[in-house]
Amino acid sequence: MSRLFLRTLRDDPADAEVPSHRLLVRAGYVRRAAPGIYSWLPLGWRVLRNVEKIVREEMDAIGAQEVHFPAILPREPYEATGRWTEYGDNLFRLKDRKGGDYLLGPTHEEMFTLLVKDLYASYKDLPLNLYQIQTKYRDEQRPRAGILRGREFVMKDSYSFDVDDAGLEAAYELHRQAYIKIFTRLGLDYVIVKATSGAMGGSASEEFLAIAENGEDTFVRSPGGYAANVEAVSTVVPEAIPYEDAPAAHAEQTPDTPTIATLVDHLNEAFPRDDRAWTAADTLKNVLVMLRNPDGTREPLAIGLPGDRDVDEKRLAAQVEPAEVEPFEAKDFAAYPDLKKGYIGPRVLGLENATGIRYLTDPRVVAGSRWVTGADVDGSHVIDLTAERDFVCDGRIEAAEVRAGDPAPDGSGPLELARGIEMGHIFQLGRKYAEALDLKVLDENGKLVTVTMGSYGVGVSRAVAAVVENAHDELGIIWPKELSPFDVHLVIAGKDDAIKAAAEQLAQELDDAGISVLLDDRPKVSPGVKFKDAELIGVPTIVVAGRGIADGVVEVKNRATGDKQDVPLADLVEHLA
Amino acid sequence: MSRLFLRTLRDDPADAEVPSHRLLVRAGYVRRAAPGIYSWLPLGWRVLRNVEKIVREEMDAIGAQEVHFPAILPREPYEATGRWTEYGDNLFRLKDRKGGDYLLGPTHEEMFTLLVKDLYASYKDLPLNLYQIQTKYRDEQRPRAGILRGREFVMKDSYSFDVDDAGLEAAYELHRQAYIKIFTRLGLDYVIVKATSGAMGGSASEEFLAIAENGEDTFVRSPGGYAANVEAVSTVVPEAIPYEDAPAAHAEQTPDTPTIATLVDHLNEAFPRDDRAWTAADTLKNVLVMLRNPDGTREPLAIGLPGDRDVDEKRLAAQVEPAEVEPFEAKDFAAYPDLKKGYIGPRVLGLENATGIRYLTDPRVVAGSRWVTGADVDGSHVIDLTAERDFVCDGRIEAAEVRAGDPAPDGSGPLELARGIEMGHIFQLGRKYAEALDLKVLDENGKLVTVTMGSYGVGVSRAVAAVVENAHDELGIIWPKELSPFDVHLVIAGKDDAIKAAAEQLAQELDDAGISVLLDDRPKVSPGVKFKDAELIGVPTIVVAGRGIADGVVEVKNRATGDKQDVPLADLVEHLA
Repeated sequence: MSRLFLRTLRDDPADAEVPSHRLLVRAGYVRRAAPGIYSWLPLGWRVLRNVEKIVREEMDAIGAQEVHFPAILPREPYEATGRWTEYGDNLFRLKDRKGGDYLLGPTHEEMFTLLVKDLYASYKDLPLNLYQIQTKYRDEQRPRAGILRGREFVMKDSYSFDVDDAGLEAAYELHRQAYIKIFTRLGLDYVIVKATSGAMGGSASEEFLAIAENGEDTFVRSPGGYAANVEAVSTVVPEAIPYEDAPAAHAEQTPDTPTIATLVDHLNEAFPRDDRAWTAADTLKNVLVMLRNPDGTREPLAIGLPGDRDVDEKRLAAQVEPAEVEPFEAKDFAAYPDLKKGYIGPRVLGLENATGIRYLTDPRVVAGSRWVTGADVDGSHVIDLTAERDFVCDGRIEAAEVRAGDPAPDGSGPLELARGIEMGHIFQLGRKYAEALDLKVLDENGKLVTVTMGSYGVGVSRAVAAVVENAHDELGIIWPKELSPFDVHLVIAGKDDAIKAAAEQLAQELDDAGISVLLDDRPKVSPGVKFKDAELIGVPTIVVAGRGIADGVVEVKNRATGDKQDVPLADLVEHLA
Repeated sequence: MSRLFLRTLRDDPADAEVPSHRLLVRAGYVRRAAPGIYSWLPLGWRVLRNVEKIVREEMDAIGAQEVHFPAILPREPYEATGRWTEYGDNLFRLKDRKGGDYLLGPTHEEMFTLLVKDLYASYKDLPLNLYQIQTKYRDEQRPRAGILRGREFVMKDSYSFDVDDAGLEAAYELHRQAYIKIFTRLGLDYVIVKATSGAMGGSASEEFLAIAENGEDTFVRSPGGYAANVEAVSTVVPEAIPYEDAPAAHAEQTPDTPTIATLVDHLNEAFPRDDRAWTAADTLKNVLVMLRNPDGTREPLAIGLPGDRDVDEKRLAAQVEPAEVEPFEAKDFAAYPDLKKGYIGPRVLGLENATGIRYLTDPRVVAGSRWVTGADVDGSHVIDLTAERDFVCDGRIEAAEVRAGDPAPDGSGPLELARGIEMGHIFQLGRKYAEALDLKVLDENGKLVTVTMGSYGVGVSRAVAAVVENAHDELGIIWPKELSPFDVHLVIAGKDDAIKAAAEQLAQELDDAGISVLLDDRPKVSPGVKFKDAELIGVPTIVVAGRGIADGVVEVKNRATGDKQDVPLADLVEHLA
């Protein structure tokens, strides 16, 4: 440590919100170079390479073959699949000196597809699994949490190529098993959840989430074993309600009730129900947003949902991808005079109605359900407005928040919500990319068939942070063995030359035995500071060479449990091995 | 090989000019993704990682510490050192979604300087050597020769930080010795030559060139041990000549002599010398070029040199960097009516003369040297125009070609010329970057001193191609042991099940013994095709399991020498180990 390029910091970096960001910067693993862009210092680089090693071993074990693509990619293939545009602002684009268009690869489906097309032609060449561990680029709108969500990051991405659906399913399962091994070896507390496939296209897909209170992803799980990313949860749809005998809708004066809360209060005061009080769930809230398409065009969208639920931004975003959601602003309202803010009802919404704004409703708005909703007149609402009879929508949307206690869609009980960090994603892409780029092989009968593909990712640099989120305490990081930058942190605690000499010899013996050692040989640094740094850095085994040396013993401390034990010098190598 | 992602090609790729490009594509090591941008297939990736391993081991051995910087870098530090502009079109520049300026790092002096400034503050922290093995980007005007000169490539770059010049020299020497080990282990036939420091700034610098007839770099060497990149050769300057008694200059009619050859013929016919014939070396040729500065401005430059030598484009380019050399075109002549094309003389050149064009002369144009040169009138030349007496220049320039037989500048004998591939470059940068970015530390006396730096590069991906340039024959590649993708290429030659079974068992035994095997188990591929592929792929040891299996022997072939030997199955592991 007297020569290691390292300075531990006493203070948290000003921009750090989560423990992994704070600790990785304070303990000298990474350093910020630009927003969302980090440099790896010697300790951090060792950990990253340990993660790479685990991922590489498990990918090799399932017969995947390692290749390496460039990061700078030509526009054409991404144009062919539509992703040049669909990625929108998330893509780093650039021009070369001749004006040619390039991008920095956020993921490589197109390039892998073209490479296989380039070399392979027959069903006999398949199945094929290729992977790379490579630096990726995404121009995130809000890079955050250090390396947890950066703009330049390391990923393992792999791609499977099969001649039929059964082959794809087998490749998907192989990857699933490999990922279970990877995340187990990383020491992560993780969960596998159903996922939406987002901009990738394709069908079946699951995410591996590290369970972490600071995670950006919300997931649900049920006592019966259902687990899904919140974006992928489908609402349990109530049965339709017969409405032949339903009362007619009637508009009422509801002055000064532009919010659900004020409306419900007013209803209970002015129009009390016989059976029970009005609640927010009786109201139909109509929310307007503006969608910005990747080509820059904008279109409004109206969402109708029970008034007791908010729109979940992420669920909405997943539904409208690749368009991005923007607020519906004052100038937008001005363009639609039929919209009475606070009193918007479904009768002016929808492609066939006055505003012509597309109107999608929550799946709970079933035929025959009765609602209190805006009357499209300031200070007035309609009561008993009945779905299908009094209004229609242009389609359904899964955009309402999911709540703890909501039923699991597979009937496996009430959902609970938790947060996680997306660490891996496995996709059955199907034939989307092969079709767009014309990847076909001859089948057994000499007929050309389109190849079916899978795409599988692991966040390699993100894993470094996710592990820290899972494994730290108030003193610092606690690395799992396989990830730790060193096997042993050996502290020289004492100014005695004999202690120093014994420690140096010990370090050499451990090194010779294949046990890597971080030796804290800093002169003029107190034992207290050295211990603090050792706790912060987080090597799982801390050996203290201090006064005990005179008696031929060192103290061996378990960083995770704090357990201490005196071990004779002669036994140390064996003890640690 | 029945499952390896590989297709060897019978035909050379259409765009391949050099053997390494042809062979690496044909043998399935790399595949072009875009101009100057390549993907690494499984075999190539293994070789590249072998090169990385050698480089990493030798850098670790000199105590350099591995870090890893981003490739996408903010503009500001490069602005501070002037390189944002100086790099001109060679830099890939891009904007993020917020309009911020970024570049793709071609080399990382600025970032390393800032990182050290960020963490270190005292002379006690130094010396420090940091390195990374990382993907770099340069938007080459003419990417060529496959991975030999690409636009995305892998480099090892390292940086030394010292408090004084002695420290820098020691760090430089450490790197020099490490590089000698690296290039020896790579099996390269290389030479260390003096170099110019180009856009990097700084003083002492040497290049490691792989000797290769297809190399882009020309270097010289003398019997006495002088060696230099041709750009770095300094001309041996003749002694000045007394000119008190020199004849006066006299203009003569020399119709239709716009070239040196026609002029010399005319001189010998119309103005024969008594002592000897006129030669091109008696004439002073004035060459005009246009310089384009990185900021886009253009300025003319006139170069005066003996008529028997041409301007060497690369030597000129090295002298005028970061400006780029462009032709002096008809429109440029039109802008300077004093320039009479084919009859341009030094009396209209120079900042103080009619054209105001900067005029630099070859070092051979010493005071008192007498020349035949243009009289600035169509069809007329001046004879006995004497340097210093009749004309002056604005300075000297080393832009004339170097020729075999020219004297070495250190008096070590006549130079010979050869070609090479730049594989490594070591620089004593000095304080240029530390000054620009204000990297100072406190010295022993508590005074702030500017750190002095070195910068050191190895072309890692380029090494893969350079080794092939050095080691191939008409059949294919011949890998040195440390680089080969596998230790042994084991060919199943025969349809007999017993042969296949024996070969598979053998492969397992070798693998268990730590000898990596590429097993050619392709069914329905003839032994002849398998042998051809083995020669092309270039694993140094080829083992053939054929009819000999019945007698308990395999054939072991040395790819380089062609030597064959029968080895009993039981002895094979020991034989190969």
